[in-house]
Amino acid sequence: MSGTQPARGTRDFLPDDIRRREHVVRVVREVYERYGFEPLETPAFENIETLLGKYGDEGNKLIFKILRRGEHEVSGEADLALRYDLTVPLARVVAQYQNELPRFFKRYQIQPVWRADRPARGRFREFFQCDIDAIGSTSLVVECELLSAVTDVLVRLGFDSFTIRLNDRRVLSALLESFAMPAERHAETLVGIDKLDKLGPDGVRAELVARGLPATSVDACIRFFEGFPSGRERRAEAVTALTRQIGPAAQPLLDLLALVDGTSAGPHVAIDPSLARGLSYYTGAIMEIMVADLAGSLGGGGRYDNLIGMFLGRDIPACGFSLGLERILVVMTERQMFPARVSRGAVDVIVVFLAEALRADALALAAELRGEQLRVDVYPEAARKLEKPLKYASGRHVPVMAIVGEDERSRGEVAVRDLQTRQQESPARSIAAARIAEIVRLAPGAEFPTPSPQPPVPSA
Amino acid sequence: MSGTQPARGTRDFLPDDIRRREHVVRVVREVYERYGFEPLETPAFENIETLLGKYGDEGNKLIFKILRRGEHEVSGEADLALRYDLTVPLARVVAQYQNELPRFFKRYQIQPVWRADRPARGRFREFFQCDIDAIGSTSLVVECELLSAVTDVLVRLGFDSFTIRLNDRRVLSALLESFAMPAERHAETLVGIDKLDKLGPDGVRAELVARGLPATSVDACIRFFEGFPSGRERRAEAVTALTRQIGPAAQPLLDLLALVDGTSAGPHVAIDPSLARGLSYYTGAIMEIMVADLAGSLGGGGRYDNLIGMFLGRDIPACGFSLGLERILVVMTERQMFPARVSRGAVDVIVVFLAEALRADALALAAELRGEQLRVDVYPEAARKLEKPLKYASGRHVPVMAIVGEDERSRGEVAVRDLQTRQQESPARSIAAARIAEIVRLAPGAEFPTPSPQPPVPSA
Repeated sequence: MSGTQPARGTRDFLPDDIRRREHVVRVVREVYERYGFEPLETPAFENIETLLGKYGDEGNKLIFKILRRGEHEVSGEADLALRYDLTVPLARVVAQYQNELPRFFKRYQIQPVWRADRPARGRFREFFQCDIDAIGSTSLVVECELLSAVTDVLVRLGFDSFTIRLNDRRVLSALLESFAMPAERHAETLVGIDKLDKLGPDGVRAELVARGLPATSVDACIRFFEGFPSGRERRAEAVTALTRQIGPAAQPLLDLLALVDGTSAGPHVAIDPSLARGLSYYTGAIMEIMVADLAGSLGGGGRYDNLIGMFLGRDIPACGFSLGLERILVVMTERQMFPARVSRGAVDVIVVFLAEALRADALALAAELRGEQLRVDVYPEAARKLEKPLKYASGRHVPVMAIVGEDERSRGEVAVRDLQTRQQESPARSIAAARIAEIVRLAPGAEFPTPSPQPPVPSA
Repeated sequence: MSGTQPARGTRDFLPDDIRRREHVVRVVREVYERYGFEPLETPAFENIETLLGKYGDEGNKLIFKILRRGEHEVSGEADLALRYDLTVPLARVVAQYQNELPRFFKRYQIQPVWRADRPARGRFREFFQCDIDAIGSTSLVVECELLSAVTDVLVRLGFDSFTIRLNDRRVLSALLESFAMPAERHAETLVGIDKLDKLGPDGVRAELVARGLPATSVDACIRFFEGFPSGRERRAEAVTALTRQIGPAAQPLLDLLALVDGTSAGPHVAIDPSLARGLSYYTGAIMEIMVADLAGSLGGGGRYDNLIGMFLGRDIPACGFSLGLERILVVMTERQMFPARVSRGAVDVIVVFLAEALRADALALAAELRGEQLRVDVYPEAARKLEKPLKYASGRHVPVMAIVGEDERSRGEVAVRDLQTRQQESPARSIAAARIAEIVRLAPGAEFPTPSPQPPVPSA
């Protein structure tokens, strides 16, 4: 069967997968649009030179390259490459449409990207990214709006307890300088500090000193970060600790804190002075969202003022946040956070006809039921017995069956069966659609689990 | 600037493009789901052997191939290929999940496909397909449900006058046989018949005879198709003409007509006995939708019982319809068929603050306005003059501006300006959000064209 599997590291998205993703995407869209962000989509592939050299050596290796077509094909030359992230295409768009885009360009983009990574549990070669970026302003209003929008998304999805870890690249640099750590060792220091939980202070100290970092600076660093008052509840202490260590250099972070406190994000924010998220391209705020009882983040971002202008040869201020859409879906599925209407089947009522001659009646009833806003399936073949339709309905989690039979027809009725309770009634044909809609709506949000296999039922 | 253009034959989708497409896709989804169809998505690329050999020689050449990664990269070997249509992936899915899918699998799929065609006006290398297919039944109920669903989509999108051309592969074959046309020349005959409009009967006759087709058969064909009573109004005559020519062999088409007449598609259907749509893989009904004053179709499909089982080595009945999403978008844009809420800007109200100290007030007001379900942008920088915010608001087609100034603040008010009428008022801060929502909703469906440039306005 390997011949019909999707390519390695990719997934087929079956209906349940898509319903779940669409639920999340709908919330993301609605919230982001309420914050004035607009949708953008870019092509799946770019000219190869647009992408090469933008993601470092490791990234270059992971870019999927497309063979040049036509007579050149035999040369093995690649002239196109698959989208690797949503940031470089955004930078290209900002350059290409600079005269048409608004001065402050606020876009969200939800599209798959492709990376030739070795597939592993939870790591795919095709996966969705969900980015929001505000281009063109250095104002802290931008950071606050991003954080507030992301908070609204998570709250509306049902996450009630999460922490927004906040840091600032300049604060982080000032801290490391205050411990006399040489600037060129900052990156290594932060990689070590990140392992404090795993290795403990002694382990981290040993590792950093072994790499040749000055021991007194390492000790000061570890002491500071190890003892830092973390968490949302200790924010006042955290501010004191920061100010004591670096004085006015803490101001950028304190300014952001003061402003974000008046937004929906405020109650969720904690200061984390070791947060770096790779450090290399952030120039100001650095943000990350953690959920209780979950290793890893639900998303992160920050200010990066030197990147979006890459195709224009000048700096353009930018601040962005990337929601971990795939991760959010995993967590929401595990925690059963989807509303019933997402989890239940795709069909509200199935219409079954018991003889060929009744096909047109079945289609007419289906049309009326659709007029009642119901999702209606018609069992396509005349069913002399209900066994097969019942099995089919059960497999599709259909809660209600309407049966168009000769007897009912002669009496001017339709048989309606609730497939959960197995109760059956026979409303008059003229009011059947309204009555069926009522039955379906009696359990408007109820989940419809797979009914247990039902015994064959005699023809109605 | 060519360095920042999208790759040849592809497009960046800017916000207006996406809003239009999303409007159409939302209608398609809603209608298709009301007919019991479920969403499916497959990966952008497949193992190359899944696609090669499935689309004929011409198709093979147009498949985008992806270089194998790692040490093999230098060999120029390709092991993956970009999705070329949505039918082969569906066939793969049907084979892969045969034990999990319902007996009648009804899916819709809206995804881009990629073809290395020479780009031309209206022909792209990346474009969306929008397919609906019902797998597993030979019942005519399937054809009727498809046609009715597609009709509902077009009606809800605002197409009021369109024709569904209907034919049947078996009827078509019987017709050509009745003219003693050898079976192996049927395809050529139909290509010729298709040119009747363009070349006229004499031109087509000359072409077909020159290809070596028997002249008497060619003449009989041309006479029949040229004189066929076409159009929705002449259906009774069409039925008579068909029956006179092939007798009971017309039955498959007459059965479908009888059943479809009771559905929403009925009033739109016309018989077109020359409709072939490439002929090669249809086994039963053939369908196509034409709109008045538009060359080419808005979509087409039919029954193809020998294709979906390609990976299983057995026939599986299937019937499908592909809506021309890209074409629908072009027509709707040209004919201005989009509702006002799609055409108007992405922002209902912009909040402007006149001094740094008022940032938090602006954010608080924005939050309240979002609570009123409005889409709210905050001009991120303190505006001592309104000139720049007004220009920005005009570029983004924002209808209303809320101004947070020191004077208003001290009076417990907010200034609100209707950017169309330029009328301004100053409601109390406590009722400002509700009042602004009212002002925005006064023109609930109104379009907001770009206001003409406004003169600088003194600070409020």
